Amino acid sequence: MDKKWYELNGTYGDVIISTRIRLARNIEEYPFPIKCSAEQQQKITDKVKNAVLNSNSVIAPRFNFIDMNGISATEKISMVERHLVSPEFISDQNSKKGLLLLDDESVSIMINEEDHIRLQVMNEGLELEKAYETAARLDTLLDESLSFAFSQNLGYLTQCTTNLGTGMRASVMLHLPALQNGKAIRKLSENLAKLGLTIRGTYGEGSEPIGALYQLSNRISLGISEKTAIDNLKNIAMQLASQELAARAEMNKHISVQDVIYRSEGILKSARLITNAEAMKHLSFVRSGITSGLIDNISLDTVNKLMVDIQPATLMCKAGKQLSSQERDEIRAKIIRKELA
Amino acid sequence: MDKKWYELNGTYGDVIISTRIRLARNIEEYPFPIKCSAEQQQKITDKVKNAVLNSNSVIAPRFNFIDMNGISATEKISMVERHLVSPEFISDQNSKKGLLLLDDESVSIMINEEDHIRLQVMNEGLELEKAYETAARLDTLLDESLSFAFSQNLGYLTQCTTNLGTGMRASVMLHLPALQNGKAIRKLSENLAKLGLTIRGTYGEGSEPIGALYQLSNRISLGISEKTAIDNLKNIAMQLASQELAARAEMNKHISVQDVIYRSEGILKSARLITNAEAMKHLSFVRSGITSGLIDNISLDTVNKLMVDIQPATLMCKAGKQLSSQERDEIRAKIIRKELA
Repeated sequence: MDKKWYELNGTYGDVIISTRIRLARNIEEYPFPIKCSAEQQQKITDKVKNAVLNSNSVIAPRFNFIDMNGISATEKISMVERHLVSPEFISDQNSKKGLLLLDDESVSIMINEEDHIRLQVMNEGLELEKAYETAARLDTLLDESLSFAFSQNLGYLTQCTTNLGTGMRASVMLHLPALQNGKAIRKLSENLAKLGLTIRGTYGEGSEPIGALYQLSNRISLGISEKTAIDNLKNIAMQLASQELAARAEMNKHISVQDVIYRSEGILKSARLITNAEAMKHLSFVRSGITSGLIDNISLDTVNKLMVDIQPATLMCKAGKQLSSQERDEIRAKIIRKELA
Repeated sequence: MDKKWYELNGTYGDVIISTRIRLARNIEEYPFPIKCSAEQQQKITDKVKNAVLNSNSVIAPRFNFIDMNGISATEKISMVERHLVSPEFISDQNSKKGLLLLDDESVSIMINEEDHIRLQVMNEGLELEKAYETAARLDTLLDESLSFAFSQNLGYLTQCTTNLGTGMRASVMLHLPALQNGKAIRKLSENLAKLGLTIRGTYGEGSEPIGALYQLSNRISLGISEKTAIDNLKNIAMQLASQELAARAEMNKHISVQDVIYRSEGILKSARLITNAEAMKHLSFVRSGITSGLIDNISLDTVNKLMVDIQPATLMCKAGKQLSSQERDEIRAKIIRKELA
C-alpha cells in the first residue's frame, strides 16, 4: 500500500477531491454515549473492536485499533486534518473513545463519537456508489455480531434526530476556486438547501473553507433511501463540477488571474517560510492552474497530498516532535519545495 | 560592441554598480544656455559637434550625434533611465539641445544642458580613475578647437556656482539594500556632508532611491583638485561598500530575509504582470542574494541589465511603440522571465 487514499486523484478530480460515506449506528442494549458510564463506553468499544477484528472477513487484519485516550493531542488533530475523524470526536477528553482504522486510511470506525459507531468510508474523486458499497459491507459485518438500535418507523436510531432513518451522511469535497471567486457560493447554498443538500467549510459544520475546499453533503436521512440520497448528491456534485470548470476556464483566461496562478507556483517553489493559510491559498491557485492546462509539471496528486501533509499537526506528527510556529513554517516550505521540485 | 557599459558588472560590483565622471564646460564667447538665443544655441551645438566629429581622434567615428529636438519623449525618458542624460536635459522643450553619444553609451556629451557642455563618462563598477582619464582625454580634444570660459581664480566658469572650479562631479551608484534596511542611510547622509560628499536617489538630486540604488558624489569642485575629489570619493565608496557587505552578510543569515530573497527570485521567474516598482524591489533582493551566495544561477550582469531594460520608456523604445501600463507590465514580466530562465 504505497499511497493513502487522500494522496490520489480520482474521477472528476479536477473539482471533486474526495467522496465520503458515513453511517451512524448504535448498539441496542446501551444508551447513547453521552449517557453512558465509563464502564459502558469501554464495553461498547470492546464490542465494536471485536466485531471487526475477530470477524472472518478478509478485511479484518487490515484494521488497526487505536485507543484515542492513549495518543497525543497532536496525533488527534492530525487525524482531523487527514479527515479520518470528526473534530467533535477529538474534542471531548473524558469519554472512552476508540478508532478502527484501515491500513490505507480509507475506512475509519469511530467508537463513542456522538453515536456508538460512526463508520466512515473515503475515496478519492467522485465515488459515491463505491464508497457506499464498502460502507454497506462493513455495516453488514458489524451487524453480524452487534444488534443495532432500529425502529420500523424511524429506521436506525441516532442521538441527533437529523441522523435518524438511514443514519447515512454522504458527502463530497469540492475544490471551487472560481465559484468562490465569483461569490456564487452563498446563492448556491440557498438553492442547495431546497434540494436537501448543504455546502460547508473544509472540515465540516461551522468550519471555514480553506484553499477553496468545500464539503457538499445530504441533509436528510429520514424518509429517503440511501440510493436516492446518493443519486441526488451525485447529480448536484456533477453539476457543480461542470459549473466550476466553466467558470474556471473563463476566469483563467485573464492574464491577471494567470499572473496570480504562476506567482503562486513561483512562491511555493521558492519560499523558505510559509504559513498554512498562505500555502493553502497558493496550492488552490496552482490546482486551478493545473486543471486549466496552465501548469503541466505538477500533478493533482501532488497538490492533494500537500494539502493534507502541510497541516500543522500532521507536519509535527511526521517530524515526530512539537514544533514552534516558525519551525513549522520552515518545514512546510521545505516539504512544498521538495514535492514541487 | 556586444554589451552596453551598464550591462556589465565591474570592480566592487557587489555593491558599486557604476562610476560616473561629469565635466561642466562653457565656451568663452557665448552666454550660458539660459541666456542664449535659439541661434546662439544652434551655433554652440554645431561647434561642439564639429569639435568631436571632425577631430582626428580615433574615438571620433564612434560618436553619434542626436538632435534632442528630433526624438520622441519616450526616447528622451529612456535616455534618463539608462543614465545617459540628466532629467534636467530633457525637461526643457524650448532650447536647442544636442547629444553626442559613444557607441557603447559609456560617454555622452550633452550640449546646452545647464552649461554649454556636460561631458559624462560612465563605467561599470568602481572605476573613478579610468573614467576620469577618459573624460580628461575628451576634455583635451574639445579644448583643441573650443576656447573654454576659465578664470585663474575660479577655474572653469559654470552657470551654477556649485560647479565652479574643476567643473567636475564624480559619482558612484551604490546598491545599499542592507544599509537602507537598517535605516543607516539618513545618519550616513549627515556624516557624508561633512566630508564634502552627498548621497542621493537613483536618478540624482531630488529623486527617490529605487531598488535601493543610491548615487554618492562629491559636492565641492572649488579649491580642490580632481585627484583629491576622486580619491576622497573612492575612499568613502569603498568604506560604504565594506559596511554594506558586512550588514548584508549579517542580514541575509536570517531565514526570514532569505525567504524574501528567494520569493523575489520565484516571483520574478513566474509573474505574468509586474510593475516597475515591484520588479525593482525584487531585483534588489535578488542582487543581494547573489552577492551573499544564496542565488547562484543568476549573474549580476543580468540583474544590472534588467534594472535598466525594464524601465517604462526603455521598454517602449525596445518595443518600438507606445504601450499601456498593463501592456508594459506584461512585457516587463516576459523580459524578466526570459532573462532569468
